Amino acid sequence: MKRTILLVLMSIVMQLTFAQKVATWIYYPGDFEIWLANQVQNRRTDRGTFFPPFWKMDSFYVLVEFSKKVTLAKPEDISLRVEGKYNVKIDDKFLPGFPTKIAIPAGHHLIQVKVYDQANVPAIYVNGTTIKSDSSWLVTYEDKEWIDASGRASDTSTGTVYVNAGSWNFNSPDTPPSHFKLPTTPESPVSMTKKDKGMLYDFGKETFGYVKFNGLRGKGLIHIYYGESPEEALSTHYCETLDSLPVDNRLPKNVTMTDSKAFRYIYIVKDGQLSYHSLSMNYEYLPLQQTGSFKCNDTLINKIWDVSAYTLRLTTREFFLDGIKRDRWIWSGDAYQSYLMNYYSFFNSPAVTRTIYALRGKNPVTSHINTIMDYTFYWFMSIYDYYQYTGDKFFIKQIYPRMKSMMNFCLTRRDANGMMEGLPGDWVFIDWSDFKMSKAGEVSFEQLLFCRSLEVMASCAKLENDTIHEKEYNDLEKGLRSKLFTAFWSNKANAFIQNRVNGIKSTQVTPYTNIFAVLFNYLDSTKTEDIKSGVLLNPNALQITTPYMQFYKLAALCALGEQKHVLNDIRSYWGGMLRLGATTFWEQYNPNEKGAQLLAMYGRPFGKSLCHAWGASPIYLLGKYYLGIRPTTPGYKTYAIEPHLGGLQWMEGTVPTPHGKIYVYYSHTLIKVRSDEGTGVLHFSSLLKPSCENGDIINKGHHQYEMQVQAGRSYTITCK
Amino acid sequence: MKRTILLVLMSIVMQLTFAQKVATWIYYPGDFEIWLANQVQNRRTDRGTFFPPFWKMDSFYVLVEFSKKVTLAKPEDISLRVEGKYNVKIDDKFLPGFPTKIAIPAGHHLIQVKVYDQANVPAIYVNGTTIKSDSSWLVTYEDKEWIDASGRASDTSTGTVYVNAGSWNFNSPDTPPSHFKLPTTPESPVSMTKKDKGMLYDFGKETFGYVKFNGLRGKGLIHIYYGESPEEALSTHYCETLDSLPVDNRLPKNVTMTDSKAFRYIYIVKDGQLSYHSLSMNYEYLPLQQTGSFKCNDTLINKIWDVSAYTLRLTTREFFLDGIKRDRWIWSGDAYQSYLMNYYSFFNSPAVTRTIYALRGKNPVTSHINTIMDYTFYWFMSIYDYYQYTGDKFFIKQIYPRMKSMMNFCLTRRDANGMMEGLPGDWVFIDWSDFKMSKAGEVSFEQLLFCRSLEVMASCAKLENDTIHEKEYNDLEKGLRSKLFTAFWSNKANAFIQNRVNGIKSTQVTPYTNIFAVLFNYLDSTKTEDIKSGVLLNPNALQITTPYMQFYKLAALCALGEQKHVLNDIRSYWGGMLRLGATTFWEQYNPNEKGAQLLAMYGRPFGKSLCHAWGASPIYLLGKYYLGIRPTTPGYKTYAIEPHLGGLQWMEGTVPTPHGKIYVYYSHTLIKVRSDEGTGVLHFSSLLKPSCENGDIINKGHHQYEMQVQAGRSYTITCK
Repeated sequence: MKRTILLVLMSIVMQLTFAQKVATWIYYPGDFEIWLANQVQNRRTDRGTFFPPFWKMDSFYVLVEFSKKVTLAKPEDISLRVEGKYNVKIDDKFLPGFPTKIAIPAGHHLIQVKVYDQANVPAIYVNGTTIKSDSSWLVTYEDKEWIDASGRASDTSTGTVYVNAGSWNFNSPDTPPSHFKLPTTPESPVSMTKKDKGMLYDFGKETFGYVKFNGLRGKGLIHIYYGESPEEALSTHYCETLDSLPVDNRLPKNVTMTDSKAFRYIYIVKDGQLSYHSLSMNYEYLPLQQTGSFKCNDTLINKIWDVSAYTLRLTTREFFLDGIKRDRWIWSGDAYQSYLMNYYSFFNSPAVTRTIYALRGKNPVTSHINTIMDYTFYWFMSIYDYYQYTGDKFFIKQIYPRMKSMMNFCLTRRDANGMMEGLPGDWVFIDWSDFKMSKAGEVSFEQLLFCRSLEVMASCAKLENDTIHEKEYNDLEKGLRSKLFTAFWSNKANAFIQNRVNGIKSTQVTPYTNIFAVLFNYLDSTKTEDIKSGVLLNPNALQITTPYMQFYKLAALCALGEQKHVLNDIRSYWGGMLRLGATTFWEQYNPNEKGAQLLAMYGRPFGKSLCHAWGASPIYLLGKYYLGIRPTTPGYKTYAIEPHLGGLQWMEGTVPTPHGKIYVYYSHTLIKVRSDEGTGVLHFSSLLKPSCENGDIINKGHHQYEMQVQAGRSYTITCK
Repeated sequence: MKRTILLVLMSIVMQLTFAQKVATWIYYPGDFEIWLANQVQNRRTDRGTFFPPFWKMDSFYVLVEFSKKVTLAKPEDISLRVEGKYNVKIDDKFLPGFPTKIAIPAGHHLIQVKVYDQANVPAIYVNGTTIKSDSSWLVTYEDKEWIDASGRASDTSTGTVYVNAGSWNFNSPDTPPSHFKLPTTPESPVSMTKKDKGMLYDFGKETFGYVKFNGLRGKGLIHIYYGESPEEALSTHYCETLDSLPVDNRLPKNVTMTDSKAFRYIYIVKDGQLSYHSLSMNYEYLPLQQTGSFKCNDTLINKIWDVSAYTLRLTTREFFLDGIKRDRWIWSGDAYQSYLMNYYSFFNSPAVTRTIYALRGKNPVTSHINTIMDYTFYWFMSIYDYYQYTGDKFFIKQIYPRMKSMMNFCLTRRDANGMMEGLPGDWVFIDWSDFKMSKAGEVSFEQLLFCRSLEVMASCAKLENDTIHEKEYNDLEKGLRSKLFTAFWSNKANAFIQNRVNGIKSTQVTPYTNIFAVLFNYLDSTKTEDIKSGVLLNPNALQITTPYMQFYKLAALCALGEQKHVLNDIRSYWGGMLRLGATTFWEQYNPNEKGAQLLAMYGRPFGKSLCHAWGASPIYLLGKYYLGIRPTTPGYKTYAIEPHLGGLQWMEGTVPTPHGKIYVYYSHTLIKVRSDEGTGVLHFSSLLKPSCENGDIINKGHHQYEMQVQAGRSYTITCK
């Protein structure tokens, strides 16, 4: 009882903490993200040549108006900081000049700050006793407030679209959004070896940051060749990234390179009479809390989890990037997987929403996201997942208008059957594969994702009380879904075929559509079994060679209860990379390849990224399908724990929730659970008889049990 | 004969000159204009407080790709200058780093330069022997060129929208668009007078620029109060614009203010121990060639023409601005009139296209231009006028896609009758007036302008060979036009009524719709006479008090042959401002107002702009309806000269054409004409018998004559 009181008190304290408002820099929602994404994505170089994205890059609104209605019990002085040229109106009257301190009298008042900036995102920071800039402030990019010949202002209550301001963690007046930069920390190489005319440095593992020369003197040129492998660093002609540093005595003695790079190895060749004491680096990172964890009796699996987490840590930066060496771009399909992994490791929600905003950009929509049709659909799907894991309904409100306009773009591109075919300029990607996959006409994979996206739209419309669109999206989804089987199911192959061109079904069967049909639960039990045996577990079926699609294939197998099989696949596939010395997981891995093949891709000897987000999927698989934790209502208000050992003797781990974590230890004889929030249901099977001191175990029959899990309590179940 | 040969030779030389390509900075069309418009329109201050526009300000594309296919007879070295971070591809292969000199081999080649810049408009300047960056280069904001896993680039021939590059006169590698600034020249006040605690300077006439203090020393604060009138400058509490300059000994001795202002008078009040030798200014201007001219026997009319030209000169700057003191914004309705005046004075085409681009901004369209419904329609109308006067078909090609999307915005906002009513956020402006004009429901004025805009769309669609839209716009126009009379013509008032609300015609008759119905030639002769006598010449009808609508009223009267009446109106209305000491023409003038009333507007004692573009309409009226010169096919390929003395004894003047001018002297006994280009037809009436040595005068009967005018020949007609 005392404990309960304590918990209630703690909960009140937490609520008060959350309720206490903090002033923060605010801006038009998405504008900081779009500005930052422009910077980040235009950093790519290819052996010193600038290599920008090939899709439209948007920009922020240069002129916006922030406003807030306040009611003050007593007068209040507020301070104001602004990025840009600005004016302030209190109750529709201009204050003179550019005020930085403003006295607001008691009573009801309207504060308006209008800001123009062409180079940086217009932003403000307001701080008073009770008045503080935050996302409750409204913002618009056209206030439409004209003044007539008599000096009367127009009625702005109609016609102007106000939205809630965007914000992040810029909570100090001295850290405006334009100053944003990731932090760095110094690191040193673990070894150096003379090679040919130069010196090869090894940092011990894949890393990311700015090379630094200490005690530099002399005159000449330093050539810097970066490598994820020693082969790459030493290949001065083919390494993917390089730099050069002109040196003369006028330079300061310690020089840090201005471009960040990914590498484990660095090969330095000096040209001229110059020297330096040592080489180090400034490791650049996004501060992340690793709330998720996983341990079991299998050290290989533990190593795979740790290397996965490190891979995801490196690729989780300003945004969820694909990989850190080459593109460093925001790819929707790659990011979609990162989000899911993130929910089982760092639970960094701002990184998710930043990425979703950046991918979407602004209206008008002129192409698919990243120009890729499937990537548009992953974008929709990611939003509902985000809501499910975080319960962040505010974000849905903010992004919903952009979801609608994105979906409108899709809807205008349907064929006569209401399906989406690749039109000129559309990239139908699906996966990298060695076999020739047909992408013509109506591709079944795209229709499945389109169907799921329509479901997401209907759900979000419902959340936003947009009943007209909810019905529209629901109808569209039903219509499309009803066509999927007649259009793409083959009774001969007992599987979905790849595509249909001019009404004629192809005979090609690929794993992709079949995997997603399982994941989306679109199948009856017969078809499920057909796909499981004929496609997923069939060694003669087309095999996947990217960790990207391995992710979904293994998830589908887990969803079908094949945890044991999947664990063996993880051991051999990811274990295979570890045996080859991987310190992070790769963009592509074909166990049949050897030597130089392992590093090559895109027709280039070192084209392959050796630190690729989509390589880190074991984090997700182990958290979701082994620890078995997932929200059942948004934000883990309720959730399920369904552990599966998959052949392990024991496992334990934590899965993050919005304000804490869920802990599970699981073996055949001992189960421990604890959660910081929400109400969970533990489902488990046991041949032995389980008992728990403070929990009510319900026997569901056939050795299946259930037990409710309350927040803040530790449960121990012993099975004897 | 010799003369003909000389002319032919000159023509060849001119063609060669035009054909010789000049390298110029190029950018995405409209992007420089949008960037510049952001700067210009965010310069407004209201007594030191920043006062930005209330409509959406767009921005340029931050990432664009320029390309050009070339065929070289021999190898060529090109030099490259870029604003932004960039890469270069020749024949789909990257050049390393950031090349500034590139050797292009002989043969066919594709040059691609991709540029990223967040702060300035991405732009390039390429110069070789034959390869020169100009508007023949293509540009896109999304090249959609992805590379597959094998390293093969995608096919970019489909899906990517390429348009011709934008350019102006940035013909030197050292003058990139971002360096653009109008030139200045020093000017001094004509008098100074001690007033109260300060000094009042008079520059003799309205001017614009940067105040400069020479020989400044001491410590304190200088207060600068600007005035278009002495009353305004001396009103330290109510003058519309002011500045202050902190002075201490560390300052350089000569200080120029950083903000440009409009003024004739400056009142200086010193605060502290400080002094200066003298005050001057840097007059800022757009270099303009005043090709248009007008002289006649009436010195008042001559003065009106000169002051009009000076007014238009001051408001014709980076863009055609409304006025120079207050808004300094780009208002579509104001600009529309400036364009027309410009065709009869400076013929500065780049200023027209800059303004049209700036007004349109980018997609998506979220409101009417300047939020004003009528201003959207003027924008459409201005484009066809521009084509008619300049023959610049290239501009139509460039702007046509933006016309279509702007018209789409309008079409989605029609009511059940296919008419446009003011929706929330729409400003139905028409004119400033002292009487309460109804703007509810279907306003007849707006439907007329909408109808005309649809005509323009059909014409431009035809020019662009867009037959589907040509038919659509034609059908829409016919449909709307057929409804105008039933909806708005009153057989009781014998005029168009103001509006119709929920199907019920109002009884209010205003001049506006009736004026435009005359100008658009939408009326039969009976209705024309009804409007002429009942509205336009009726002293009891509602009177116009802005030069803005005077423009159209007087144009309509001239179109009906009332040149004599109009000339008297010009004498009294514009002459009235001159008698009150105007050195430029005003935003509003009501001959019944006196004293302080003359300066007040918008509820402020000095709110009225005394140098307003729409005040300069006599330039247009005298050129078009007295000299009587207008193109009859685009770009003055053919044109008409129909002089009307309107009671004058003689007049002479020039009207600019794309590559020259047309000169006319006209009296009852002597006519002289000369033209640099095109084929003209002189129409004139004479009670005496006209004869011409080198022209064929055709007698059309009823004292009407016609004569063809060939380019480069001088004609003298004597009437005896």
